[in-house]
Amino acid sequence: MDTPDFLNRYRREVEAEVARAIPADGSSLYEMVRYQLGWTDAGMPTLGKCLRPALCLFACETLGGPAPQALPVAVGIELLHNFSLIHDDIEDGDELRHHRPTVWKVYGREPAIMAGMALWTLAYQTLEAAAERGAPPERVREARRAITDACNEMIEGQHMDLTFEQRGDVSLAEYTAMISRKTGALFAASLATGAIMAGAGAEEAAKLAGFGRELGLAFQIRDDILGIWGEGTATGKPVGADIAKRKKSLPVVHAFQQVVGPDREVLRNAYSKPDIGESDIDDVLDVLQRWNARYFAQGLAEDHRARAMAALAQTTIPRPARFKFDELTAFILEREY
Amino acid sequence: MDTPDFLNRYRREVEAEVARAIPADGSSLYEMVRYQLGWTDAGMPTLGKCLRPALCLFACETLGGPAPQALPVAVGIELLHNFSLIHDDIEDGDELRHHRPTVWKVYGREPAIMAGMALWTLAYQTLEAAAERGAPPERVREARRAITDACNEMIEGQHMDLTFEQRGDVSLAEYTAMISRKTGALFAASLATGAIMAGAGAEEAAKLAGFGRELGLAFQIRDDILGIWGEGTATGKPVGADIAKRKKSLPVVHAFQQVVGPDREVLRNAYSKPDIGESDIDDVLDVLQRWNARYFAQGLAEDHRARAMAALAQTTIPRPARFKFDELTAFILEREY
Repeated sequence: MDTPDFLNRYRREVEAEVARAIPADGSSLYEMVRYQLGWTDAGMPTLGKCLRPALCLFACETLGGPAPQALPVAVGIELLHNFSLIHDDIEDGDELRHHRPTVWKVYGREPAIMAGMALWTLAYQTLEAAAERGAPPERVREARRAITDACNEMIEGQHMDLTFEQRGDVSLAEYTAMISRKTGALFAASLATGAIMAGAGAEEAAKLAGFGRELGLAFQIRDDILGIWGEGTATGKPVGADIAKRKKSLPVVHAFQQVVGPDREVLRNAYSKPDIGESDIDDVLDVLQRWNARYFAQGLAEDHRARAMAALAQTTIPRPARFKFDELTAFILEREY
Repeated sequence: MDTPDFLNRYRREVEAEVARAIPADGSSLYEMVRYQLGWTDAGMPTLGKCLRPALCLFACETLGGPAPQALPVAVGIELLHNFSLIHDDIEDGDELRHHRPTVWKVYGREPAIMAGMALWTLAYQTLEAAAERGAPPERVREARRAITDACNEMIEGQHMDLTFEQRGDVSLAEYTAMISRKTGALFAASLATGAIMAGAGAEEAAKLAGFGRELGLAFQIRDDILGIWGEGTATGKPVGADIAKRKKSLPVVHAFQQVVGPDREVLRNAYSKPDIGESDIDDVLDVLQRWNARYFAQGLAEDHRARAMAALAQTTIPRPARFKFDELTAFILEREY
């Protein structure tokens, strides 16, 4: 399926602003940053889906706000998102992202940690620049505060994700609390800051944050599905990858909660090994199949999509824009990458 | 020697504000943060030297500013400093700090990286709170901007420090550029933000930043000396520690620049090994001794102290406070920990 048109509408401006944010000196620190952002020889980054900045800018515009003033905020969010990608890849030991070796794989773990931190400081420098675009200082302050709080949640969520890998008894509620922080918070901030930069009040911003958070949950659950059953050629990662990494992604959480009898022994046996091998992954995949884990996960993602749209209906976002957002939710739940 | 009295003057307020900044939930993320900050059962952190917040608050007060308004800024800086300590310990593989196992040694590397990031987000949340203390928003904005820029430099400096470990030909100019970023920038920001929160103009803040940067250079060079010759009982680290880690600290940079003849072979031989052992460390220590590396380093630290005091004399800081700052520079150059 095609991506919704507003995902591409701001791409050029976002890429240009990202390019402005990264120092052009010859430092190997910023070389890593440029590599992460998909920088090409032509001198412009080619970002991934660019989802979060598009959400911010589209929310701002549909509420009658000036997108150019929101641009540094949107780009700050994208830079912080890329910080989290670099660090996630290190923690998860992922060697590929979008068919390219990850930053730590190319440059080493310690330098990659630094590259992530550099993105963080550049994000905050970019946020400071928002006031220079003529945006009212109190909007910039509110937006930055929302982003800082989201980053705090994001770190909490990444930490929970890590600790869950050591546990077999993660409940659905704990899983949801984890992804709400790890992924939901920055989605929520993307929409809330779009509203804030359009001059919306705190109540409207909170409603959009609620929409964004449910959207983030749906997005993450679809990510979990792709992390197990995604076609390697589309995701750039091997099938079953998240099982080998003992990720407590939703299908696995579901299985650990539901599976009884001989299949429970199969699960327990696979996850008790120091290294989960190819045949263990196949065994776990069979169990997940028999217990409808994929079907359950997709259904829960659909639930969050429905809640997202219900939250959106409570906002002042005009109906045509709501249809656009609904196109996006459909895309999020059907995407293969 | 005793520490200058103003280093202790604000300790209680700083510790209380730090305690307020850290969420009290039972999360293992904040348990690590509390461990790093020396939290005791009594419910208050016992911070280290508390140098940077004291510099910020003392600068603010001596320029006639309200220290309570600067307190969140000072504490934000201290939290960011502690972020850098956690990450430095991970990168350097240091197992001890102030006679206690480092965070990564107790909790593991990945969780420790998260603890550092959590400190970062808490620092920015604390900075946001400064406006709620009645500080004029434009002062808070200028202070935060100075801190963000300093953090960017700090990451650049840490990255340079890492890359220098792979090289034998680091020049004195490169070394100085590295520590100016890694250590000087946050010292500079500590003093500049104190001035900003007192309502000083950009020019005065820049002069104080210049003083702070030279102070930071002197501090780091003394740190380098202690990293090689410090008594383990005072620093909490083994003698020769920085040699084993192939740190391009100043005495080693000096040696690689100056040493010729058979001693050069000794150096080259030790640093060419995959692991620098006990007897290699002794050999390197002998070379450093013969080539007066410690004397050279201490002399350079004294130079930076003199430049710091010259910069301070250009500010409007009143004479009695300048004497206090000079006490501090003396302490910095004579300290054994």
